[in-house]
Amino acid sequence: MDLKERIKAANEEVLRRIVAADPVLVDVAPAAEVIPGLKDRMILHSGPPVTWSRMCGAQRGAAIGMCLFEGWARDPAEAEQMLSSGEIAFEPNHPHSTVGPMAGTTTRNMWVWVVENRAFGNRAFCRQVESLQQFGDHSRDALAPLVKWRDVWAPALGAAVRKMGGVPLKQLVARALLMGDEMHNRVVASSSLFSNAVAPVLLDFGLPKEQVVSTLYYTGNHPFLFLGLSMAAAKASMDPARGVETSPVVTAMARNGTEFGIQVSGLDGEWFTAPAPRVQGLLLPGWKEEDAGLDMGDSAITESVGWGGFAIGGAPGILNFTGGTAEQALAFSREMRSICVGASPDYLMPALNFEGTAVGIDIRKVVQTNVVPVIDTAIAHREPGHGIIGGGIVRPPLECFTRALARFAEKYRS
Amino acid sequence: MDLKERIKAANEEVLRRIVAADPVLVDVAPAAEVIPGLKDRMILHSGPPVTWSRMCGAQRGAAIGMCLFEGWARDPAEAEQMLSSGEIAFEPNHPHSTVGPMAGTTTRNMWVWVVENRAFGNRAFCRQVESLQQFGDHSRDALAPLVKWRDVWAPALGAAVRKMGGVPLKQLVARALLMGDEMHNRVVASSSLFSNAVAPVLLDFGLPKEQVVSTLYYTGNHPFLFLGLSMAAAKASMDPARGVETSPVVTAMARNGTEFGIQVSGLDGEWFTAPAPRVQGLLLPGWKEEDAGLDMGDSAITESVGWGGFAIGGAPGILNFTGGTAEQALAFSREMRSICVGASPDYLMPALNFEGTAVGIDIRKVVQTNVVPVIDTAIAHREPGHGIIGGGIVRPPLECFTRALARFAEKYRS
Repeated sequence: MDLKERIKAANEEVLRRIVAADPVLVDVAPAAEVIPGLKDRMILHSGPPVTWSRMCGAQRGAAIGMCLFEGWARDPAEAEQMLSSGEIAFEPNHPHSTVGPMAGTTTRNMWVWVVENRAFGNRAFCRQVESLQQFGDHSRDALAPLVKWRDVWAPALGAAVRKMGGVPLKQLVARALLMGDEMHNRVVASSSLFSNAVAPVLLDFGLPKEQVVSTLYYTGNHPFLFLGLSMAAAKASMDPARGVETSPVVTAMARNGTEFGIQVSGLDGEWFTAPAPRVQGLLLPGWKEEDAGLDMGDSAITESVGWGGFAIGGAPGILNFTGGTAEQALAFSREMRSICVGASPDYLMPALNFEGTAVGIDIRKVVQTNVVPVIDTAIAHREPGHGIIGGGIVRPPLECFTRALARFAEKYRS
Repeated sequence: MDLKERIKAANEEVLRRIVAADPVLVDVAPAAEVIPGLKDRMILHSGPPVTWSRMCGAQRGAAIGMCLFEGWARDPAEAEQMLSSGEIAFEPNHPHSTVGPMAGTTTRNMWVWVVENRAFGNRAFCRQVESLQQFGDHSRDALAPLVKWRDVWAPALGAAVRKMGGVPLKQLVARALLMGDEMHNRVVASSSLFSNAVAPVLLDFGLPKEQVVSTLYYTGNHPFLFLGLSMAAAKASMDPARGVETSPVVTAMARNGTEFGIQVSGLDGEWFTAPAPRVQGLLLPGWKEEDAGLDMGDSAITESVGWGGFAIGGAPGILNFTGGTAEQALAFSREMRSICVGASPDYLMPALNFEGTAVGIDIRKVVQTNVVPVIDTAIAHREPGHGIIGGGIVRPPLECFTRALARFAEKYRS
């Protein structure tokens, strides 16, 4: 077979694996117990590798928050001293089968969603999503929901999920897409459905009533409850597609607020990076363009699997968060077909007459067409210490794809 | 003021009242305790007035089911004998501030959703929606969920709702419209949101655990849970718009499977009827066109308030139930503007760039344009004894509107 045919066969295999994925939530557990290679005094972060000196303000602020959350430091100044002196190790989430929202900071005592891809046996992990600490706010108010998540809500949910023998996510995500979620910044339907699914089970064993009531108020009213689950489901779905020789399909897109990085199936383990872009969108009242940090977060794993910006045509409810029109959203979803190797038979968009979401971004198609993926995303502040300041649409730098394609040619044309 | 100006002022008042409506679920209670004028051995039915001799098959079957449910008859034959001999009284739901799905059969021991319009103080009622008895199936299987509703689920929900001091529905419906519900045949988002709202409250008082668990499984998995609530909310919202002199705005559209009837604000108490039309749509596997009964149910109260077919452009997930394309659905919602006096500032359709749903059907505009309302609906069998057999789109006969307009001219031009 010549290279073109090998690529075609490899891409078919990659598409087969992504489509066959069967993500099931199997546990909610402390990161230290489940994430491979996560050590004490280590912070996993979003995006490609980065260290303190080049780290963006929001990620620095979030890292300070985690030092306080873990009790490694007594105050932000001490935390900053530890972080800048190298006492705390930094590693990206992705090689640990993990993804994290925005700054993505994951440490030992952060309880994570544990999603198993039952078609392949691999697991992926994602922390809980809230809108302050992950954006760089390290105040007591920002950390309070993480403490409650650790002490009250996550243990209750973990017990319920184990009792249920796992919560299948494929059908739940498919239903949520029919209800206008796109599984990245609009997860209101999936959050609500998930809360419905666990509610009666939470009662069925001996947890204190106050814990159950508190957990039900939390799950039933959190508009981003499902985002961490969606990200873990996407990561669990994409990881088996890694390492297929000669496949130029993207297996991850991730950003750390300094750089945007992509990974490619046939070039597994390598990052292809370029400076993180600016997000075009809507800022919350009181914030100005110059306050905004650059694109950040592992959440673009949802676009990598064909959700998020790829499914935005079916989710116009998101437009009061990102800006733009319903017609533009439909055009985005249609445009994504031109850079992908296939479409999902399971994840459908009713607004596009139940067509499947585009799946499997081929770096060759991106470079040939100059069409880069559409990602919808939240916006953090450029300095540490703030919560969410807005949302919008972002496109990765084309440079990530041209670099990956050059490396691909180098590896496979030799 | 000449008549044209009086009509304009009257329509402004009607629109003001509809838009100001503030529906709040305040109770779930036995029909006998709350519905004014509902007597023993009386069945309230959907649509304009009808008696046994002219009643369609599905409504007959449903009436037989209620005789068994109430214990008035021991078997279907005895029930049929009682019904045909006049032992059981029939009255339409609407004059009792009540609406009912499909056959609409409402009797003393059927627990109903009680919705209060807090802006005006009026109340409206609707029974629970399930897909067998209300369609005319009177078997034990069809009645079983009504018995559980009466004995287990409704009392639990009533207790929770009273403890909550009521569940405001306006914001809940607005959120559900952003999630692709249209509040008639697609209420999956509102059902899910409502279940989450009551879940933690259900635990907070002394109901037996099994009852709470059973209720949460019921509410968390019922795709039509909210339809009865939506109908009661629509009825509570529309009733204050009745009886505004010189207003030609429709206050109710309702069908009994034999006739389609409309009511008009400035002609309060009168029905303008024509033979019930055939529904165009999709039949469930195993059913043929000739099995289908004609259009039936009070559920078009949702279209009367601007939901249902009027909001279908924002709810393309419904199209696998009704048939049609996303483009047709958008066109339906746009077309409805041409026959209405205004748009809702609260009930928005993101797929139409957050435009409000059309509100206040003006019979003059219908007759002038020949555009009749779009209603999405379920399909019952033409004979008694069956459950749901399909879904689709139906348009009322133009004749209802021309007759109403003739009467309007007669009343106000004299």
